[in-house]
Order: sequence, then C-alpha cells, then structure tokens
Amino acid sequence: MRFSSPWFVASVALVCATLASAKVPRVAYPKSKQAARIRNKFKHSLAHRHGAERSFTGTGWQASAPVADAPFTNIWAGLSDDEAADVIAFLHNQPALNLTAAGNSTAWDNSITVVDTLLPNKTDVLAYFAGKASKPDRYARATIWFGTTENPWIQEFQVGPIPITNSSTYASLDWASTKGSAVQRNYIADDALVTEYCYNVSASVQDIITDLINGTAMGGASDDLDIWGIDPVWHPTPETTTQWMTFWRIPSSIFDGETLLPQGLYFELNTTGRDPSGWAVLGWLYADTYYNSTNAFRAAWEAGELPKLESNVEGDWIGTDYMGPNTDVGANSTMWASEKPPPVQVPPGGEDGIRYKVDVENKYVEWMDFTFYISYSRDTGLRLFDIRYRGERIVYELGLEEAIAHYAGNDPVQSGTAYLDSFYGFGPYAFQLLAGYDCPTYATFLNTSFHADEVSTTHLNSICLFEYDTGYLIQRHSNDRYLAVTKNIAFVVRSVSTVGNYDYNSTQFDYTFYLDGSIEVIVRASGYIQSAYYYANGNYGYQIHSGLSGSMHDHCLLFKADIDILGTSNSLANHTIVPVTETYPWSHGATRNSMRLERSYVASEDAGKIMWSENAQTMLMVVNADEPNSFGEPRGYRIAPGKGGGMHLTVTNSSNLLNSQSFATHDLYATVRKDAEPRAAHALNNYDVANPIIDFADFFDGETLEQTDVVLWFNLGMHHVPHTGDLPNTVFSTAQGSMLISPHNYLLHDPSRDTRQTVRIDYDDTKGVETVKTFGAEFSKGATNLTNTVPDFWAYRGDIAVRKFPYDPQHPFNNTVSIV
Amino acid sequence: MRFSSPWFVASVALVCATLASAKVPRVAYPKSKQAARIRNKFKHSLAHRHGAERSFTGTGWQASAPVADAPFTNIWAGLSDDEAADVIAFLHNQPALNLTAAGNSTAWDNSITVVDTLLPNKTDVLAYFAGKASKPDRYARATIWFGTTENPWIQEFQVGPIPITNSSTYASLDWASTKGSAVQRNYIADDALVTEYCYNVSASVQDIITDLINGTAMGGASDDLDIWGIDPVWHPTPETTTQWMTFWRIPSSIFDGETLLPQGLYFELNTTGRDPSGWAVLGWLYADTYYNSTNAFRAAWEAGELPKLESNVEGDWIGTDYMGPNTDVGANSTMWASEKPPPVQVPPGGEDGIRYKVDVENKYVEWMDFTFYISYSRDTGLRLFDIRYRGERIVYELGLEEAIAHYAGNDPVQSGTAYLDSFYGFGPYAFQLLAGYDCPTYATFLNTSFHADEVSTTHLNSICLFEYDTGYLIQRHSNDRYLAVTKNIAFVVRSVSTVGNYDYNSTQFDYTFYLDGSIEVIVRASGYIQSAYYYANGNYGYQIHSGLSGSMHDHCLLFKADIDILGTSNSLANHTIVPVTETYPWSHGATRNSMRLERSYVASEDAGKIMWSENAQTMLMVVNADEPNSFGEPRGYRIAPGKGGGMHLTVTNSSNLLNSQSFATHDLYATVRKDAEPRAAHALNNYDVANPIIDFADFFDGETLEQTDVVLWFNLGMHHVPHTGDLPNTVFSTAQGSMLISPHNYLLHDPSRDTRQTVRIDYDDTKGVETVKTFGAEFSKGATNLTNTVPDFWAYRGDIAVRKFPYDPQHPFNNTVSIV
Repeated sequence: MRFSSPWFVASVALVCATLASAKVPRVAYPKSKQAARIRNKFKHSLAHRHGAERSFTGTGWQASAPVADAPFTNIWAGLSDDEAADVIAFLHNQPALNLTAAGNSTAWDNSITVVDTLLPNKTDVLAYFAGKASKPDRYARATIWFGTTENPWIQEFQVGPIPITNSSTYASLDWASTKGSAVQRNYIADDALVTEYCYNVSASVQDIITDLINGTAMGGASDDLDIWGIDPVWHPTPETTTQWMTFWRIPSSIFDGETLLPQGLYFELNTTGRDPSGWAVLGWLYADTYYNSTNAFRAAWEAGELPKLESNVEGDWIGTDYMGPNTDVGANSTMWASEKPPPVQVPPGGEDGIRYKVDVENKYVEWMDFTFYISYSRDTGLRLFDIRYRGERIVYELGLEEAIAHYAGNDPVQSGTAYLDSFYGFGPYAFQLLAGYDCPTYATFLNTSFHADEVSTTHLNSICLFEYDTGYLIQRHSNDRYLAVTKNIAFVVRSVSTVGNYDYNSTQFDYTFYLDGSIEVIVRASGYIQSAYYYANGNYGYQIHSGLSGSMHDHCLLFKADIDILGTSNSLANHTIVPVTETYPWSHGATRNSMRLERSYVASEDAGKIMWSENAQTMLMVVNADEPNSFGEPRGYRIAPGKGGGMHLTVTNSSNLLNSQSFATHDLYATVRKDAEPRAAHALNNYDVANPIIDFADFFDGETLEQTDVVLWFNLGMHHVPHTGDLPNTVFSTAQGSMLISPHNYLLHDPSRDTRQTVRIDYDDTKGVETVKTFGAEFSKGATNLTNTVPDFWAYRGDIAVRKFPYDPQHPFNNTVSIV
Repeated sequence: MRFSSPWFVASVALVCATLASAKVPRVAYPKSKQAARIRNKFKHSLAHRHGAERSFTGTGWQASAPVADAPFTNIWAGLSDDEAADVIAFLHNQPALNLTAAGNSTAWDNSITVVDTLLPNKTDVLAYFAGKASKPDRYARATIWFGTTENPWIQEFQVGPIPITNSSTYASLDWASTKGSAVQRNYIADDALVTEYCYNVSASVQDIITDLINGTAMGGASDDLDIWGIDPVWHPTPETTTQWMTFWRIPSSIFDGETLLPQGLYFELNTTGRDPSGWAVLGWLYADTYYNSTNAFRAAWEAGELPKLESNVEGDWIGTDYMGPNTDVGANSTMWASEKPPPVQVPPGGEDGIRYKVDVENKYVEWMDFTFYISYSRDTGLRLFDIRYRGERIVYELGLEEAIAHYAGNDPVQSGTAYLDSFYGFGPYAFQLLAGYDCPTYATFLNTSFHADEVSTTHLNSICLFEYDTGYLIQRHSNDRYLAVTKNIAFVVRSVSTVGNYDYNSTQFDYTFYLDGSIEVIVRASGYIQSAYYYANGNYGYQIHSGLSGSMHDHCLLFKADIDILGTSNSLANHTIVPVTETYPWSHGATRNSMRLERSYVASEDAGKIMWSENAQTMLMVVNADEPNSFGEPRGYRIAPGKGGGMHLTVTNSSNLLNSQSFATHDLYATVRKDAEPRAAHALNNYDVANPIIDFADFFDGETLEQTDVVLWFNLGMHHVPHTGDLPNTVFSTAQGSMLISPHNYLLHDPSRDTRQTVRIDYDDTKGVETVKTFGAEFSKGATNLTNTVPDFWAYRGDIAVRKFPYDPQHPFNNTVSIV
C-alpha cells in the first residue's frame, strides 16, 4: 500500500512547480489523491457521463426485497451528506480552528480531512432500547489537519449534537484515547515534498539508474519508474524521521501490478522537519552492499564494482486476463468447455420469492430468525450492530478493528513495511460490487458513503445481501427405513475493500448467517502482492519470477465481537478436554486412559490474552452464568476458528509498529467493555506508532471478566509466503480465514428444525416409498430466465462525489479514487 | 455404533430358540444383520416392488455427462458381481477351507464374510503406466470366518488371478500385515449368544428394571428396551473377555434415536470362551454405585437403597421433522418465508452444457485440468486414484483409512467405547443420495457395490459428481480504472456413509477440485449422537435433556494422501516462519525485530510424526527436490488444514484401543511408501485391538524421507462435546473439517488464469465503461425449467442385492441394511 502514483505525481507537479514555496499541497489523511484530483473533476457532472442513460441495475433480477420496518432508527448510521455538510460548515465557523477549505488547502494549512459518525456509547443505546433513557444525541467525529506550524499534528474532535444548533460544540476526542489525547504528531505532513525530493535524488544519479535499471523517475507523465518506500516512517531518535525508498517500475498497460516490479535499488532519506533544505540522503543499498553517501555509491559504480543483477520487467505475466491453455506457463492445460456457462444460483420465486426483508433507509435486515443493523465507516468499512436471534440480542457489535500487513526482508523497504490499513481506510475503497460475480444478480445491493477532504463519496452497490444454498445439507440422517434431510441455506452480507495495490486488495468481508443460529465472519484476499527484489531475499520468501521475490508477510485482521447473552452480564467460559488416567467404582481398581471435560471461567483480564489451544481441545464460550438452561448448563455462544485457524503476528515486538501492534500478539482477547474503549486501534496511530491514540495493551488492567460486559477481539488472517501461484494475483480460495460464533447450550434444540426446508422420505425394501413429508414447503417450478444471471457489464460505474465546502449537492460528479 | 437391534434380535430369536444348541447364527463381520435378514428377503424381487415403474432419475435434469475415454482400464475398480461370484465359487471349491454357504452358516461354521478387490501394488501399476510392464494381474481379497473351533478366528486371503483359472490360488494375506499374519482371533464370534444371555440377565431382574426404568428386553417384538455395550470388547487378561452392557430405550416412532435414550443401568459380563454356561454376570452399576453381584444389586434394591433418578424417555425431541415456530423449544422463532423455495443452483447449458466428462464403466472423470479414477471398497468407501493435473500425476491415492469415535464417561459403557469404523465398513452404508438435496439434481450419479455374506449389494446413485459455483470469486482486483474478476467454480465428488446411528451418521465425504489446482478433502457429520445417561457424567459432557448427557467424544478420521510430484522421488519440505532479531548492512548497527523463512527437509521417518504448528507458522510441502522450477524453487504441493484445523486423539494410550490407535496420536504422518504398507489400519483390527493386523506404529523405522516415495497420512475430525444444539441431530455446518492440498511453486502462475470465466471491465469516471473483455465465454441465457431442481421423491429406493452362492444374478432384490 502506498500513496504516490504517476497520476498523483502529475497533479502535484502542476500545482507546485518549485520547492521554494512554503505552501505545497498536502497529501492528506486519508493518503489518497482526493484533494489534488478533485480540482480537475468538477467539470464532469453526472449528466455528461457517457452511458449515464443505461440502467444501473443491469439485466439481473430486478426484484427488490420486501420492506422491513426497523424497530429503531439506525443510530449507528454513517453521516448523511447533509449531516456532513452541516458539521463541516460548523467547524469552518470556529475561528480558533483557522480552517482552509480542503479543496484549496496545502500542507501548511489547517483543514478537515474526515468526518464520520461518532458511534453512541453502548450504555446510552441500551438504556434507550430499554426505554430508560431518551434516544442518544447524535454526534460526529472530525479529523483535522493542523499544518500551520513546524510541528504539525492531526487531531480528532467530537462535534455535536447534530443537526448543529446553538448548543452544539466541538471538543478534542481525548476520552476515547488510551493516552488521554486525540492529538497525533504528523511526521508525514510533507509527503509531497518528499516525493519531489526523491525525484531530485534520482536525477542526481540518473546515469547510474540508466545503467542499472534503465528508467526515469522525474515526476513527469513519461516516467517509467516510481519511488516510494517504508510505511510507517522510521524514527532513529524521537525527533528524527528517516525513510528508506526504492524504485518500482510503472506498468505501461492498464494492469496496476507495480508492486510486482521492484527494481532493487534503495536509498535512505533523513526527512526530519518541514524544510527540505535540511533533508539529506543518508546512504544507498545495492546488491546487499551499503554505501554511506551518494558519492560513495557513485564511486563504486564508476569503479565498476556494481554487479549487473537480474532485471524485473513488465510482461504479460502481470496481467490478470485469460491466458489460455498451452502458453509457456499453461503447458498441458486444456480447460475443456471452460467457455460454457458454469452452474449458477437462481432465486426460484422471483420478485415474490425473496425470503428476507430490508429497511434500506435504516440498513436494517431481517432473515429467518436473525435481525441486525448495518453501519459503515471510513476507517473500517462494514460493521453490524444489534444482531438479534429469535428476538434476543446475541451480538451488540461485530466488525473489523484494524488490519496489519507486516512484511519482512533483507532489504530495508520490505523490512520496514508494516501497514496499518485503517490509516488508509476500508471505507474509501469499498468499490461497487459486480452483480453476477461478486454477488448473485438477485442480491440486494446497498450504497455506502464516506466523507473525506470535504467531499462526500458514495460507493454505489457496495454492500450486497443474498441467500445462498451452500451446496451441502445442514442436517441429514438415514437408515433402511427413512431419509431426513434439511437444506443448508445461508444469508450473506458482503463488502469488498481494495486497500491499495498490495496483497489483500481485494479484501472480501462476509458475515454469513446460518439456520443453526451461527454467524461466520469470513475474510478473503485476492489481488497483487507487494513483492521484493529477489537479490539476497532468499530467507524472506521464494523467488517467483526473474528478479522477483514473493515477499513474506503476515496479514492480521482484528475484529471486535461484543457478544451479549441475555443481557450484558456475561462470563467467558473455558471448557477444556484433557486426557486423564482414572479409576472408577466399576473398574476393579484398574486405571483407564481416557479424557474428561474441565470447566472454568477466565477470571480476569489478566488471563484475557488467549491463544487457540493446541489440538483445539479448549472451547471458549461467552455465557450468562446467571442464566442456566433447563438442565443447568449456562446459555451461551461459542467462538471458534472456522477456516484457517485464527492467528497472531509472527514478529514479536515489531520494530516497525512499536506500541501500535498490541492487538496482534495473541489470537483472541477478552476485555471488560467500556464506553471509553470503543476501538482497539485508531486510524491515526500510523502517524506516530510509538505514541498511538489507542494502545490496546492499556485495556488490560486486571478487571474481573465474570458476569460483566465481556467483549472479544479476535484475529483472522494468514501467514503469506507468496509462491508462483500468487502470480499475477493471490486467489481467494487459498487466502481465507473465518471465525464461527455459534450457539452453545443456548436453545434447547437445533433451531434448523424450525425451517420448512426439510424433507422426510419413509421407504421400505418391499413396498418402496411409503410417505413423503415436506412440511408445507413450496417447491421451485416453472421457467426462469437465465439471462437474469448475467449483469449489464456496461452499467458498471464509479463512485459518486459531492463537494461539501462550499456545499454543492446539486452537482454530484463521478470520482473513483484508488490507492495506485 | 452397535450391532444389535430389535429387528435383528427378532431374527435371531426365530432361528435360535435355545442356548443349548452349539450351532447358533453368527453375527458376522461386517456386524450387520445381512445374513440373518437375507433369508427373509429373497421373495421380494425387483419386479414386484411397489413403484418400480417410476422413473428412478426423478424429474431433475436428465442430462448425462459427455463420455470420457479412460486412458487405462480402472485397475482399482471394485469387484464386479460376476467377479465376486467367481471368487466365492473358487473358495467353496477349496476343501481345506471347509466352507458353508453364508446364507446357511452359523457362528460355528466357516464362511466367507467379505470379498473385495485387492488393490494392485503401486510399483506394478506405475511400471504398467510407464509401458515397462504388462497390466498387473487382478486379485481379490477374501475374509473368511473360521468358526469350527473353540478359538475362532477371522483371516484375510489373497485370491487370484481373476478371472479364476487353473493357475489361480489363494493364500493368507500375511505380507500386508505388520505382525506378519492376516489371522485375527475372534472374541466376538458368539455375539448372538451374548445378546441372548443379556436378555436372560435382564429377565432375572425384571422386577428391578420395571421399578427403575420401566421396560422389558426379552428379544421379542414388544420389547421397549435394548441391551448393548462397549466396543471393542475388554480383556482383563489376554484370555479373558468381559463386556459392560447397558439398557437403551427403543423408540416407538420411526425415528431411530435410540442412542439418545440410555437408561443408566449397567452390568458387566464375563463372556470368555464359546460356552455360555461358562459366562457370568460380574457386577452391576447404578447411580455411580458398583454392586459386585446380581445378588448384591438385588439386595440393595430390596433395601430401598437405589435412588430414583431422572428418566430419559422418548418424545418429539428425538424426531428430526419440522418443529415449527413457537413450540416450547422454538420460542420467538418466526422463520418468515421459510416455506418459500430458497435459491437453487442450476446448470445453464442443460444437456449440452455439462463441462466435465465421465467414463461411467471405468469411473474415470475429467474436469478442467484434472483427471482421476474413482474406486470403492467395503471397508473405507470412496477412494480416488491417479489424480492428474495438466497431465502430470499429483496424487496416486487419496482416501479414508480409518475412523475412530472415542468416547469417555464416568459410566463403563461410554468409557469403554471407541469405535473403529472400518470394522463396520463405510461401503455397506453409503446409501442412495437424494438428488436435489444431497447433491444438485443436475449431478452425475454413480452406483457402488460391495460383497458381504455372499451377497452383492449395489447402492444406487451413491456417488455424485457436480460443478458448483462456490458463491465467491476465485480472483478479484479492481482500481479506479478497471475491475477483473474470475468465477470460483469447483468440482465435487461426494458420497455419504451412515455408519450406525451415532454421531457421524451421516458422514459426508467431499473431494473438491478448484481452478487454482487445489484439492480439498472435506468431512462433515450429521445425525444422532451416542449419548450417555446423565447421572455422575457431568465431567464427561453437558446435560442436554432430562436424564441425558451429551457424551464427549473425539472423531479422528485418518486419510492417506500419496502425493507424487513429477514422479515418486519426493521429499517433505518444512518451511517455517520464525521471529528474528537481526542487524543488516543498512541498519546502522541497530537490531530489527522481524521474521524470516527457515527451510529444511523432514529427514527421516523418525521426524515423520507431526503436529500442525502453533499459529500455523510451519508450511509442509511434498516437493521434488530434483525438479526445481525456472527460479530454483522445488516444485511441490502443500498440505494444510482448511476448515477445522486438523486434529489428533485427545486420549493418550487409549485403554480401549491399545495397539490399534497408533495413527491417531499426531495430526500428520509421513512415511516411505511400500507395497507391503498399503493401509495404515485394517478392518479386522477391532477383533483384537491388542494384536492388530496392521499397527501403524510399525511403519516408522527411521528410513530417509528425502527423495523417496513419500506418503502422507492426515487426521480430520473434531472434538465433540455435544450441547443442546446437537438435538435431535448434530448439524453438518458446525461439524466439519477439511484438508487443502494445493500447488506450491508447482506451476509458474495461478492456473485459474486459464479459465475463460474471467471478465475485465475498463472504466473511466468521465467516459464510463470503455471496454468489457469476456475472453470467449458464453453466457447463460433463455429459460430453464425450475421444476428440474426438484427430485421425484417417490422414486427413492433401497439397495439392490444379488445372491452369490449359489449365484443367482437373475433375481436381484431390494435389500437395504443399516446398523440400527
């Protein structure tokens, strides 16, 4: 993941031709090209868009889901466009903030980067639901870039209540920070200048670069090399900022596989302070040899001491198009009949057959015995709230907290790279889903929005909801007299975020609901890996192409699961299966090697950092110890890895992430839920990883976990050592992990018995089938039009943006922005 | 899993009214009711069957798969009916065997229990495939029951070549045994007498039983109690056989949930020797109190010392029918619209659209770039051979070896129960699959056969083959200029075995093939659990109903995966991701906390017993170290847990299984493949677990694993502590595990790029969609008839049997036999 790009660079170059100016454009958080690109985009309104007359919903099923009536307004909903404009206008009215409109701002101004909903405190929400309090006031949070100083910072504020009235205020959001301050030092305020500086460094050794890797990086449209490096930046001392940079080849085709084209030449910059005249090149690395100055590097080159290494160049191998059989890399492939349409799932009932209800306005969903609300944020994307099962809340909140992609390498760039993705945000990059591919064409699609750089952007059709036959039964039993079977129909809530052009681009998030009362959280990754130059990197990955190493890395995605079992007074039960050697009243004094179940509770947060047990012999359940079922077993929900086993970070005490990786040291965490600890990580942590706004380690202060509001935090992901099969893209099928949250002594029987999609056939060898019981189920019949399974590919379109300050809601425009 | 049953018992009672007779019917291996029931079944030929005029294939799609032409005859195929008859006739001609026809035999005769294919040695097969040897001769293996002695035994023979000629011979199959002998002592030859004995014991305390649990077990049709106990039998000394027994209530409804109805009264028998007059009741257990004689038990009862405990009686709760919302156990369920037909997968192309080829005669399949043969055996069911990918063999053999279900309990029956399922066999119980439920109606169905008790039985439609859209993409990448997506279509080979009425009844075996070259082995379990009486069993499971404990147990299913990478000279690579603290040429002398990849090979079988690593930091691959790819990385296939994480048995040195559980001590094993070590377990082991025919531990003799024919053995399964959600049946959705066998540096790119089911959409914020590339793919269109997704439920029918001795192929009859 990275922030610079040829397009961005071009924009920067246009606006800021000289480094002499103190006013340079800022590369804002989110580190996107938003602000820079917007200036050129206003002229393209939707009305002028080619193809705008096409039906967006394609030729797929046009059925809309029956309407649900949400019992409460969605109080976790993202800000509406009007709310965002309201908040932004309010902040611009605060003289103390000295704000510049984002569209006009530079790195030396103060400006608003992000506004989003400040989620209400659970305490207030539950009081409201219980009728014991009025509806919680609605608040926004706003992130403001303070650039008018030698020591720039980013700060998060609470703004509200909204809508803005005379009683609305703003205040630093310190209470949700473990360090007591929502202020984060900004050491990367002048990234645009750093990029410019890099071009100058490159120009100073153009002859060497031409010789070694043959390309140019000057910030012009004809560049075939790009320069970027570590993330987060490095601090050899608290007041020093250094960054290793390297060269990447810019693909000439549409395929943005630049991260497959590292060139193997590295240099280190001291970028301390805001004045580039104080910056310096600290050294160079080539062929695993370090040169402590540009002069030393040049001298070695002139002396002929630099070896010619394997080159790493663009080719068809970085493209994701159909390659076809019997190419050089597809020898002996036939793929007979792969051109024919494969099986496809269809909705038998058409418009009248949809078996779930949606309140689109409130993003509220009812499917079988589940109901829930959907929320969406710039930082972490899709999030579910108030998941109820058979009328009882089982999960208050379920969603992503943070995603680490921690690399390693013999080279300084891969070694120094450990992305904290909420910094970039999952919300801005949850692009439109392609009906018929990302989700069935019969799915219900919802839009999502985020508000950055004073522009509100709407991703059309970026969440989908659909039922799916999983392809295997949920229940089956047969003998020589009967057969009983029940279909395993699941309900999926899906979004896909493409956070940059590296490995888990795209990250697919599925929340899947099952008829047995289970919820599965699934993460899948596909897309281009961020690779390394092969030289001397053999201990950090496989060589996967000429000049290329599949740079090893860990993906570690933390989720919050605030499970509530019959209220918020819950405990975390630990039931472990242990081998034993025992004698029994009936064993004649002899011992038996057997096993038994040992039950205990996780006493306090001191024991709340948990690894999944060896051989999975430990079961963990959130239970309400005061609510036993009829047979004395406490009712609860179990949490256990589904696919992939759960994970934590391999690297211990990461030098890159310092105090910002404390949620990735274990597989699972249990803490006491507090209003002041809503998030385990923070999107601003990446600005200063040694001094994060939220250090998850501080959540652990030894409080009891018995009959209190327990919240779980679990990691999904994978240790990824890319091999040749990751070219051109990693595939979802092998890069996935999931967690299963399932009832455990919660009801008195398997709830899938309550669906009518069950059939029993009684038969007899002599008489044949005697009885068929179908329990009132209706069956598919008649014709369906398979053309509906194919989308209108030409209707695909980008995000819709609306300018916020000055507010210009009448002139939306297409504006799709990705990190490439 | 158990062998007695009311029906069986009734049959036994008819034939053997007195214990005085030395000639009693045998309960043969397989411990089914085959022989006993067959006598009553011959009169029901197919022609007379009600409903026989119905089309068997139902109303589903009638398309048959295009015909493949297998390059070789399936040399792993099961015996045909004629071959089985040929072998059986040959054995009956051997005077030394002194055989009685199975249909007339008793426990005191010699008779044939099973004939099956003796799989050819891999060495011979590969020589044949390579054109260096002629086709291997075909042989059968035959299991013979030797009952005419005080020390009965079971023995396995090699018979052939077949077809039988003058040069055909038979010989004890000693060479495939680790103990050097295919002879297994039979301590359960007189199980029918044991059952009869139990009825007498029960009758002797009928007054107490009536008082405590209110029922009768006399072997008559009006019985409402059943008696059975531990498995395998116990040997306090090598020459003594004892068995704990308990009472189970026989359901009056069709639902065979007898294993949910344990009654909590136990007695121990000494069943040493074949003369019931020498047998004895050793003691009783009730309410966790042991009585060392029937008299002592009676005295306690008469003294009023026996407490009245919770009863465990039949009710709707053991039925699997639709229960409906708002029953006492389904409170607050609505399941809105569950009667409407859910989404269903359809084949767009109809007859012309099937994208795989099948050679039905040879059970040979071609799908995309995979080809393979299917085999089937009485012991372990479905098995795949010679799986080739893009023309190269990657797996020689893939299939189930053995399945343990190891229970534990405070009571002697659950404590003493540890099933070895190949003893019962997966082949006999792989019943017909219900099209539209077990598999799509558009699947290709294959029949399977097994030959037991001189009857050949054919399971109609017991294997299915189908393509399935997994519901998520295999590849996805997008940015602000384009979107590239590829469908994740998988190919599934499925069978379901219902081995008894306990927990993984039904066990579903899926072998799933993916477009990235991966193969996933998936095991799922649904059905009735074998439970325990609740009293004093709290440390061995949850109380899940009045009087009922969900008896804790481990399912441990061993699979063989004989992976071949470019020949049989292979090594097992271990690549481990380890945290490191390192300095680098560029790190200015400072250390960095990072990670690296350590590569090694598993040197020998001494290191061949392997646990999946903590945090999954170790990757294991079978590679050909002499066949590096273009970039120097050895080509290989990785093996890693998919769902559920892989597992091994919790109990160490199981007192129940003794030397017959050595394949369940670790997650994964690697050995040198040998012709004399074809199987890690043996169906006859259960007869004498201390002296198994195959003790897997003996495979480990320190041989090198480097560049030799490595074979892997891996365990799947689950630790199952049943909770209320396992009532009435455990559900597949939470009871599943899988192993993924996937290419690792095997090809030079992701092979899913070679399917045409890829779409690329190029778009632009200003111009909209500019290009749609579909790579020659055809798209679904036009109408399809959804009625085809529904099967003809009335066409379901049982197994077809053919009597073998005397051979009577003209009179097949319906005969479905389950272990209930």
